[in-house]
Amino acid sequence: MRYSMPGTMPGTLNIREDSAPSSIHVFAYGPDGFEERTVENAAEIHTFMKRFPVVWVDVVGLGTESTLRDIGREFGLHRLVLEDLVNNSQRAKVEPFADHLFIVARQPIDNGSATEQIGMTLTHTALLTVQERPGDVFDRVRDRIRLPTGIIRTRGPDYLCYSLLDAAVDSYFPVLEAIGERLVALEEEVMDRPDERTVSRVHTIRRELVAIRRAIWPHRDMINALMRDSDKFVDEETVTYLRDVYDHAVQLMDLVESMRDVSSDLISTYMSVVSNRMNEVMKVLTIIATVFIPLSFVAGLYGMNFDPSASPWNMPELGWAYGYPAVLAVMAAMVAGLLAYFWRRGWLH
Amino acid sequence: MRYSMPGTMPGTLNIREDSAPSSIHVFAYGPDGFEERTVENAAEIHTFMKRFPVVWVDVVGLGTESTLRDIGREFGLHRLVLEDLVNNSQRAKVEPFADHLFIVARQPIDNGSATEQIGMTLTHTALLTVQERPGDVFDRVRDRIRLPTGIIRTRGPDYLCYSLLDAAVDSYFPVLEAIGERLVALEEEVMDRPDERTVSRVHTIRRELVAIRRAIWPHRDMINALMRDSDKFVDEETVTYLRDVYDHAVQLMDLVESMRDVSSDLISTYMSVVSNRMNEVMKVLTIIATVFIPLSFVAGLYGMNFDPSASPWNMPELGWAYGYPAVLAVMAAMVAGLLAYFWRRGWLH
Amino acid sequence: MRYSMPGTMPGTLNIREDSAPSSIHVFAYGPDGFEERTVENAAEIHTFMKRFPVVWVDVVGLGTESTLRDIGREFGLHRLVLEDLVNNSQRAKVEPFADHLFIVARQPIDNGSATEQIGMTLTHTALLTVQERPGDVFDRVRDRIRLPTGIIRTRGPDYLCYSLLDAAVDSYFPVLEAIGERLVALEEEVMDRPDERTVSRVHTIRRELVAIRRAIWPHRDMINALMRDSDKFVDEETVTYLRDVYDHAVQLMDLVESMRDVSSDLISTYMSVVSNRMNEVMKVLTIIATVFIPLSFVAGLYGMNFDPSASPWNMPELGWAYGYPAVLAVMAAMVAGLLAYFWRRGWLH
Amino acid sequence: MRYSMPGTMPGTLNIREDSAPSSIHVFAYGPDGFEERTVENAAEIHTFMKRFPVVWVDVVGLGTESTLRDIGREFGLHRLVLEDLVNNSQRAKVEPFADHLFIVARQPIDNGSATEQIGMTLTHTALLTVQERPGDVFDRVRDRIRLPTGIIRTRGPDYLCYSLLDAAVDSYFPVLEAIGERLVALEEEVMDRPDERTVSRVHTIRRELVAIRRAIWPHRDMINALMRDSDKFVDEETVTYLRDVYDHAVQLMDLVESMRDVSSDLISTYMSVVSNRMNEVMKVLTIIATVFIPLSFVAGLYGMNFDPSASPWNMPELGWAYGYPAVLAVMAAMVAGLLAYFWRRGWLH
Amino acid sequence: MRYSMPGTMPGTLNIREDSAPSSIHVFAYGPDGFEERTVENAAEIHTFMKRFPVVWVDVVGLGTESTLRDIGREFGLHRLVLEDLVNNSQRAKVEPFADHLFIVARQPIDNGSATEQIGMTLTHTALLTVQERPGDVFDRVRDRIRLPTGIIRTRGPDYLCYSLLDAAVDSYFPVLEAIGERLVALEEEVMDRPDERTVSRVHTIRRELVAIRRAIWPHRDMINALMRDSDKFVDEETVTYLRDVYDHAVQLMDLVESMRDVSSDLISTYMSVVSNRMNEVMKVLTIIATVFIPLSFVAGLYGMNFDPSASPWNMPELGWAYGYPAVLAVMAAMVAGLLAYFWRRGWLH
Repeated sequence: MRYSMPGTMPGTLNIREDSAPSSIHVFAYGPDGFEERTVENAAEIHTFMKRFPVVWVDVVGLGTESTLRDIGREFGLHRLVLEDLVNNSQRAKVEPFADHLFIVARQPIDNGSATEQIGMTLTHTALLTVQERPGDVFDRVRDRIRLPTGIIRTRGPDYLCYSLLDAAVDSYFPVLEAIGERLVALEEEVMDRPDERTVSRVHTIRRELVAIRRAIWPHRDMINALMRDSDKFVDEETVTYLRDVYDHAVQLMDLVESMRDVSSDLISTYMSVVSNRMNEVMKVLTIIATVFIPLSFVAGLYGMNFDPSASPWNMPELGWAYGYPAVLAVMAAMVAGLLAYFWRRGWLH
Repeated sequence: MRYSMPGTMPGTLNIREDSAPSSIHVFAYGPDGFEERTVENAAEIHTFMKRFPVVWVDVVGLGTESTLRDIGREFGLHRLVLEDLVNNSQRAKVEPFADHLFIVARQPIDNGSATEQIGMTLTHTALLTVQERPGDVFDRVRDRIRLPTGIIRTRGPDYLCYSLLDAAVDSYFPVLEAIGERLVALEEEVMDRPDERTVSRVHTIRRELVAIRRAIWPHRDMINALMRDSDKFVDEETVTYLRDVYDHAVQLMDLVESMRDVSSDLISTYMSVVSNRMNEVMKVLTIIATVFIPLSFVAGLYGMNFDPSASPWNMPELGWAYGYPAVLAVMAAMVAGLLAYFWRRGWLH
Repeated sequence: MRYSMPGTMPGTLNIREDSAPSSIHVFAYGPDGFEERTVENAAEIHTFMKRFPVVWVDVVGLGTESTLRDIGREFGLHRLVLEDLVNNSQRAKVEPFADHLFIVARQPIDNGSATEQIGMTLTHTALLTVQERPGDVFDRVRDRIRLPTGIIRTRGPDYLCYSLLDAAVDSYFPVLEAIGERLVALEEEVMDRPDERTVSRVHTIRRELVAIRRAIWPHRDMINALMRDSDKFVDEETVTYLRDVYDHAVQLMDLVESMRDVSSDLISTYMSVVSNRMNEVMKVLTIIATVFIPLSFVAGLYGMNFDPSASPWNMPELGWAYGYPAVLAVMAAMVAGLLAYFWRRGWLH
Repeated sequence: MRYSMPGTMPGTLNIREDSAPSSIHVFAYGPDGFEERTVENAAEIHTFMKRFPVVWVDVVGLGTESTLRDIGREFGLHRLVLEDLVNNSQRAKVEPFADHLFIVARQPIDNGSATEQIGMTLTHTALLTVQERPGDVFDRVRDRIRLPTGIIRTRGPDYLCYSLLDAAVDSYFPVLEAIGERLVALEEEVMDRPDERTVSRVHTIRRELVAIRRAIWPHRDMINALMRDSDKFVDEETVTYLRDVYDHAVQLMDLVESMRDVSSDLISTYMSVVSNRMNEVMKVLTIIATVFIPLSFVAGLYGMNFDPSASPWNMPELGWAYGYPAVLAVMAAMVAGLLAYFWRRGWLH
Repeated sequence: MRYSMPGTMPGTLNIREDSAPSSIHVFAYGPDGFEERTVENAAEIHTFMKRFPVVWVDVVGLGTESTLRDIGREFGLHRLVLEDLVNNSQRAKVEPFADHLFIVARQPIDNGSATEQIGMTLTHTALLTVQERPGDVFDRVRDRIRLPTGIIRTRGPDYLCYSLLDAAVDSYFPVLEAIGERLVALEEEVMDRPDERTVSRVHTIRRELVAIRRAIWPHRDMINALMRDSDKFVDEETVTYLRDVYDHAVQLMDLVESMRDVSSDLISTYMSVVSNRMNEVMKVLTIIATVFIPLSFVAGLYGMNFDPSASPWNMPELGWAYGYPAVLAVMAAMVAGLLAYFWRRGWLH
């Protein structure tokens, strides 16, 4: 959770102390050529814009406020847009401005245990992307730009924007696949060796799924808004492609829901497995205890020290010739009777 | 879960290694005639289109990329449509294009434990269907085409499309019937012989029901879209028929919901049955143990070795003439008292 | 669950083997007269239509396919409408056709444990109703028609249709009343003598309530559609009456929801009652066992056979003059101490 | 639950046998004067209408059918409106008619354990209210009418209608306050002395809350309809006041929801408190039993009667000089060892 | 819960006895200057309005009815608006009037355990805010006004209103952060030392979260209404800023939802931890008891006093040379057998 102090002036950049310094990577391309450079100064972007039809300005790291402000000035960004580009906790959204669209998407990082914001600004000739940390899910898109024959070279910045959104959304698939594998492993654990930590392992997965759902869900509205209300910046053909991204987002939601159902079932199964084991333990105790308690009583009875010599009523059995075997027989009969009773009630199988 | 690597170029066909080779089956028919052939080359379809008013091109198997691309070129399909035809994990949907509709439906396979995509492309004169595996739910429709007197012969490809959708949706009925029978069997199991695996059997059914609901649910929107927005490809009379398919989809959703309710009840009943049995076991233990524990104490008491000769206070009872019978009487009284107490509390019935 | 085989030709009548033969009852009336007859032949309906402003054709039994097809031809029904009239598992709905409305409603049968479809076709001069089994909830409406002074005689077939829908919807009230009484009885059972079958009795009621909700719910949409979009067949004054039926449907939904809440509470109360009883049993066991176990130990201690003559250290207590009373006093003190401890922890009250 | 027999003619007044006889109270007022009378005959209302701008006709008791029908005739009510005025189980609603609005509201009675219908008919010059039982929440409004300086005297019947709706809705606040106090008391009971009836006490409150929610919820739609679609009978200024009633209804819903959450928490806390107490009891049993069971065994061991004289292997300990102290020491060591084990596992604190 | 008696005249100020006396703070500013004063008399506000473009009238304390009524007259407020300003239990809302907007927002107080209403009235030249208690979340905004270079000085009262709403909404972030920390602490408590109060601590947090959600939720609609329907009082540029506040409100809802999920998981984990511990305790009891009960029986057996001299059948073992070692060996074998059985069933690890 990152937020400015309540009442702070709008447009204040809330930069973390441990942020990496900002660096600017430029991909400029067109049907006829391609250039890829890391520039020092935001002003250099201009020269690329003159020479190439499409310029992708990729800013990585939020540590250098001056660079960010320069970029903002270069693209004519509203102070709130600049603030949002830096604030990593935005949900996916589109905001239309007179000469650009401001788009926020989120990509999964650290195997899906968290997500990182991708702030985008789409103009007619350029796409600005701002990311907090180096490393993203766009390397394959970069390779496609580098390829002279790629379709991407012949299209505008809206197609580039689509390609990045497509890569961002699709990058949740491998994350969900990994979670699915952990669920299968947990399923086995629940049936075979449930322990105290099992439930909290399931809860960890549930929490990750909820976080992923929260991250993906607004993408649907965002893509919808891009498809419907953004014809100034997104051309008709690209809308067809965006529909595909939308379908993928819906499929991801379905997957997340399925996995949430599985995890709910896991908890319910865990409860039933644990309570079954408990019952089994109790049953064994019942049987052993209730078989021996009466036997012990009989043994205790004949352990009493009443004096047979004081009266013929005092435990004459002790002096009988077959007293001991008779008592053993009585005990055996008691065991047999109890076991038969338990068997009849279905407790022995 | 099947997906392309994030960032892959749109239109890439994600063909599994174990896919069957693609084969093309053509059903061409009209009021005056009918022909049924397996063709090698996508180009041959043209000749059928010239001779018959309606041509159904049924592609089975996704293994041969060249065949699929030929078909795509023949029908003028968008690269994303071709990708979707191959990707078996689409939800039911309709996508309008200038000269065709792209439709996705799903049929149940393996007794409903999974579903398979049916990709369709509906033009004014032809219907293309793409399926991953041989074997489908359309054999009865094929028979109706073969019959010279069938209404289907006199109608266009939209009616054929309706007939296939109708067969696909209706094929969930027998699947649900089988699940219903399993639920009835599980209901008996829960009441008569619940075990540790019972709950996970119920969860298996719940998961299948959820998967079926997920598969059927989007069909409603898809059919709705066909009825409302597709008058270019679907004529008025066919809309009346589609309304019937829509009603069946809604009935299926009702059935699935009923069964989910039954399965929830099953889990709740299971819990109550198991906990009742547990309580019964505990009650028996309580009664046997609490009856014998005091008796054993009395027996133990008179088993003590205090020396009666040392003092008249030392266990004089042992020397009494009726000491033993008296103790037995006391024990019998204790048993009677405890049983009366338990009876009064309602633990014995 | 009743369905045709997937892929069957639309319009196929799926008639059960055990269906009763179809019989046609005609109620023809107007302000000036009234006639009631059972006719053999669908063609006879014509003569009634000429002589009376309103004709109610009530078909009971689905067994005679030829009769049904004749009726269908007489009313000019679409093949799908005829199929739906025979298929008893439709939800309540309205479907507009050029010269008639097709309406489905459901009435409760067998005390609400099931519902039966009433298929209706409303034209400008007649109302066709199709029911599967003899016996319905319309007898009071028939009596109102027979009465020369009834308002119903002065109105068109739309008012007759309203009267039947009103009777069908209202017939759920006594059904819910009976369920309410069963719930009250179950409430007592849960508090006083809960057993293993109690929960499944509650589940039975819940399932009936859900089935009733599923049956009633679509009536709201159906009546709404009749009120809003059917001015061709339903006149303004009748709409006011339909609004009343709509209100009743909403009240029924409220009742069902209340009863579902009560039944949920019942299960939760049952769980708590059962677990409370269990705890009470355990508490008694705890108290009896923990009081006697230490006593028995002391008794056992002095039952040991160490030879006092071998050494003065060997159980000299056995030879003491007040050894036995002292041990008894110690035991009494132990009992008092334990009971005081239990009392202080609140386990004895 | 009150309902007419299914199929009954619409407009039949379903009057209970135990209904109080109907009496008609008239409040007639204007800026210049005020009169308050109980009239015998519905026809007398006319004279008031001529003399005062606003006439409030308050009918209490539903027992006299003739009076009700007279009133209905006087106000020109539809037969269904008259039926609804008598049927006490309507939800809050507005129904527009040509020359009046029919409004239903509900006030809490018997401290909120039930609600009573207030049927209203608003014309341009009069307001008719029908209540089943004497005693309502309108006394303060009556006092405001009696006051010569009240604003209410200067306004039309729509403002009177607003005042009554406001009083009816606000009268749920003290009811909820009382329920809130019962919840606080139950909260203490759950923590300090939970018993078998606690859960059913919570359920009683939940049921009352649900009933109140069901009563209030439709008021929102009703007031909304009054504000939006009823400009013929409700003037602009009164709409501002109705917005206030709407806000109160929404606040009531919020309150009910909060209390439902509290009651859910109570049940969950109860379960956890009860299960904790149970566990504590079990722990004490475990500790006492497992400490004494091994001791008793040792005592039992040396209570065996093997004959030391028969062989030097037969319990030579019994003859040792320090046998008894040694056994006592062994027992003390066992107790210490077990207690240390339990302490280490955290069962003693 | 604060409410007027049902039926009270609208516009009655429901002032609590313990309310602080009202004091009026004026912030008047423009690009060229700034003045900050506490005034005694509502009439003095006029002089500020003449001299400055923007006047913020901040009334703190609801105790002085005359002051409040003066302010109301000064701003031309509707009697219901004045009533709402005093009634601290309003939800966030906007109500449009001819010459002002009435806005209600809520700020967290007492670390988020409660919220306080901020009543606002926005005119073209002034903003009136009414708060119940001294101390609010606006100090940073006041500082920004005091700063001669602040943007806020150059903007109208709508921007001031935005700044206050922004501060009010953002002030929930630190509150949620604190709750998040308590949740982390509770998570550890649940795993390490769960006790009877743990669940009620979680419920306390849940209740606070629900209260915060109830407070924030209506802000979204309120801000939306400000953005869409209030162009008379809110200019285009300010709408962009309000969109930012809206996004923050949505983020807060997401946070609250996440935390509610965590708290639900906590309760479920708690239940599973407690039941696991219970099971562990039971297992130890089972093992110790079932190991010793049979041993005790054997010892009791040979404690019987049958007279070996009376017959060779009477416990001849007692006289055997190796009787005692043999019995010890039998006991050891029983222990080994039972432990092996338990080990095999997995109860010992």
